[in-house]
Amino acid sequence: MHYSLLYIPILCLGLVATNINSGKQDVDTRPNFIIIFADDLGYGDLGVYGHPTIQTPNLDQMAAEGLRFTQFYTGASVCTPARAALLTGRLPVRSGMVNDRYRVLFPPSQGGLPVSEITIPEALKQAGYISAAIGKWHLGHVQGHLPTDHGFDEYFGIPYSNDMTPSVSPGERVKTYPPLPLIRGIEIIETEPDQRLLTRRYTDESINFIRNNIDSPFFLYLPHTMPHIPLFASDDFEGKSSRGLYGDVIEELDWSVGEILQVLRETGLDKKTLVLFTSDNGPWLTVGLDGGSAGLLRDGKGSTWEGGMRVPTIAWWPETIPEGFTTQSLGTTMDLMPTILHLAGIEIPDDLILDGVDLMPVLTDHATAVREDIFYYRGTRLWAARKGPWKAHYITQSAYVGDQPVFHDPPLLFHLDRDPRERFNVAMEEPNVVLEIQDMVERHLATIEDIPSQLEVPEWD
Amino acid sequence: MHYSLLYIPILCLGLVATNINSGKQDVDTRPNFIIIFADDLGYGDLGVYGHPTIQTPNLDQMAAEGLRFTQFYTGASVCTPARAALLTGRLPVRSGMVNDRYRVLFPPSQGGLPVSEITIPEALKQAGYISAAIGKWHLGHVQGHLPTDHGFDEYFGIPYSNDMTPSVSPGERVKTYPPLPLIRGIEIIETEPDQRLLTRRYTDESINFIRNNIDSPFFLYLPHTMPHIPLFASDDFEGKSSRGLYGDVIEELDWSVGEILQVLRETGLDKKTLVLFTSDNGPWLTVGLDGGSAGLLRDGKGSTWEGGMRVPTIAWWPETIPEGFTTQSLGTTMDLMPTILHLAGIEIPDDLILDGVDLMPVLTDHATAVREDIFYYRGTRLWAARKGPWKAHYITQSAYVGDQPVFHDPPLLFHLDRDPRERFNVAMEEPNVVLEIQDMVERHLATIEDIPSQLEVPEWD
Repeated sequence: MHYSLLYIPILCLGLVATNINSGKQDVDTRPNFIIIFADDLGYGDLGVYGHPTIQTPNLDQMAAEGLRFTQFYTGASVCTPARAALLTGRLPVRSGMVNDRYRVLFPPSQGGLPVSEITIPEALKQAGYISAAIGKWHLGHVQGHLPTDHGFDEYFGIPYSNDMTPSVSPGERVKTYPPLPLIRGIEIIETEPDQRLLTRRYTDESINFIRNNIDSPFFLYLPHTMPHIPLFASDDFEGKSSRGLYGDVIEELDWSVGEILQVLRETGLDKKTLVLFTSDNGPWLTVGLDGGSAGLLRDGKGSTWEGGMRVPTIAWWPETIPEGFTTQSLGTTMDLMPTILHLAGIEIPDDLILDGVDLMPVLTDHATAVREDIFYYRGTRLWAARKGPWKAHYITQSAYVGDQPVFHDPPLLFHLDRDPRERFNVAMEEPNVVLEIQDMVERHLATIEDIPSQLEVPEWD
Repeated sequence: MHYSLLYIPILCLGLVATNINSGKQDVDTRPNFIIIFADDLGYGDLGVYGHPTIQTPNLDQMAAEGLRFTQFYTGASVCTPARAALLTGRLPVRSGMVNDRYRVLFPPSQGGLPVSEITIPEALKQAGYISAAIGKWHLGHVQGHLPTDHGFDEYFGIPYSNDMTPSVSPGERVKTYPPLPLIRGIEIIETEPDQRLLTRRYTDESINFIRNNIDSPFFLYLPHTMPHIPLFASDDFEGKSSRGLYGDVIEELDWSVGEILQVLRETGLDKKTLVLFTSDNGPWLTVGLDGGSAGLLRDGKGSTWEGGMRVPTIAWWPETIPEGFTTQSLGTTMDLMPTILHLAGIEIPDDLILDGVDLMPVLTDHATAVREDIFYYRGTRLWAARKGPWKAHYITQSAYVGDQPVFHDPPLLFHLDRDPRERFNVAMEEPNVVLEIQDMVERHLATIEDIPSQLEVPEWD
């Protein structure tokens, strides 16, 4: 990566693009970025992660051609904060996108991602990138919080989860919800869109966006609506998977990934596009067969056990990322922001607190110690922390309905490399490790400020 | 496969070899067979089956070049009956290799696989094959029950499990055990061999056997001692895996597989050798971190839940088995006998009751309906049965210490394709399926005769 000496301060964001070469005089070395973000897809739900009856040949092939992570984490175990983490590179507790009572945004919510937050597309704009968000947003649906308020040039999708509509969810509160809107830009173009077509429509929109931007660097953020419940697959996929409807839905997402990679190959963009596939959180285990599997990991969506926050993740960039490697290196969705900004030649201002690190040494050279820590928040509180292979749980609560939080002093301690299912608490045998993690946690917590939550729902109080 | 019209009845066994061409006049089309049988390896313990921290590049490569099963079963959830099932193609309840009190053979046991049973090497002898067993036997260690009594020309290994010696197992009974013997042929050549070297020594012996038989068809049965506890790895592997000693042991087994496939490639035998890798039963979950993982499957070794009997399985035969496919077709270790005999041109007598079916249509053409049923025995009783995707449990008991059997009427019913973890009992919703399985079970049980158990330990009564 060549760094220009020409610094152009962009005062409103405090960002510096050091590699601006959007003029035609030079070969454009700026890579494109595509993030495909599944919704509630579990660690064990892909063929390449060991599922016995869900077939994902395109994602398996993507892994065979790229890098597969076995220890990659989302920033939160539920939708809204997980999305804030990915787009800002920051723990959602820093942006107010957490709440101990309302864990995500709901249709009556008035809050959203603050405009003071710097998002990936906002930063990329300084380096001449075009950005599109295609899919489920869930970072605020009132004016000032939509994708186009946060640096995206284009938006097509639904504003929050697909069950947040009276047509599919029962219950008193839900009766007051508006019909599910489908939005283009800032306009509602349909209400109650046929959800069987969402994966296909997002895919078509994504392919159009790629084809329209062959000659300019782009960022495509594709947060699929599926496999969040209610599950829907198109006629081509419904009834096809032996796993049932959940499998149909995953197999259609797999098809979608295949279509997108194929367009990149056809257009010759594959060699200059970093594609990352991951999930916003673990599987929703309480919805029966409509929920996925965390494989050998414990628990699922909503919890700070591994099954809630460790997600299947594949990075693909032919000729830049070596093919067919599986890494045990730690990574998080928050690492995408600094990784992408680095690749686009954008300097990150010193006063911006980021929780992400540049993952390129992992992607290209399989570096093993780029990241050593993971902080597991549930709402505003830190429930667990990982340092190297060790994880301490200060509070635990299953995602299962009716379970209550349990406080641990000393914390539960697990060696995740040896004990990935978190079965054997070794806190008594490893008091020094407990102290080391406690030190790390205290240093971390000193950087967290108390700020207002964006997720209050005043009309429900 | 060419079938000769020349039939040579071998009366003592009732077997017919129809493809004998051991003379030099024709090209020898008889393939070689290698079965690599891990001990207590769980469904989730290989990289290609989704383990996050155990690295198995050779087995992953074997799967990439061959066929990986996601629904392959052993014949029993503990050692002795599982081995009887594999070598005879019959449920161990038919050979007396089951017992409700003593589930496996112990050093004081006087029984073993009856000589009336026809084993794979015994049958292959009729077609001119040389056979070797290298590893853990556990089908009888008194005269008449050793490998060389059952058709193997060569034997090198230990006679039963590696914890059945006073040097590593505590307890009153164990005090009366002899030191663990290492046997060649029928001679004890060492007592208490250094277990750290067993995987390597078995590998070296296997490679020698292959090199010594380049010009004649052979059957190599390689039942590894590992990863049964106590765990041991050689210096080259101990301390290397981030999974700890269990991972070291699996990574050494993976190395062993790589060495064997490499010898086949180097000698040009790869195109005429069917290699199958599998496990005798699920992971031993009650031994802490020294036991493996069943991945997303429920429970482990000793139980009739899926984690006890569904095992990681890879078939490899370049240019005959298409590369890189994963099949959901059912298979069992008992299918190896008819598959191998068919490939060797040996006819199976009509009066031999086999529980295996010829898997070649699955191996070569990905056929999906070759086998529809699985019978899950624990000791002498049928505890569960699978028909297509449905599994009915009549009795359940976890493998965990202290758990008691629970009888179910109606049985628990799970749809394993949709619900691989056996979470959602749907017996009430699917009464017709319950009846269909009951019919199948009754027809099956009518074929089971009450015969004496080989596993009694009179001195313990």
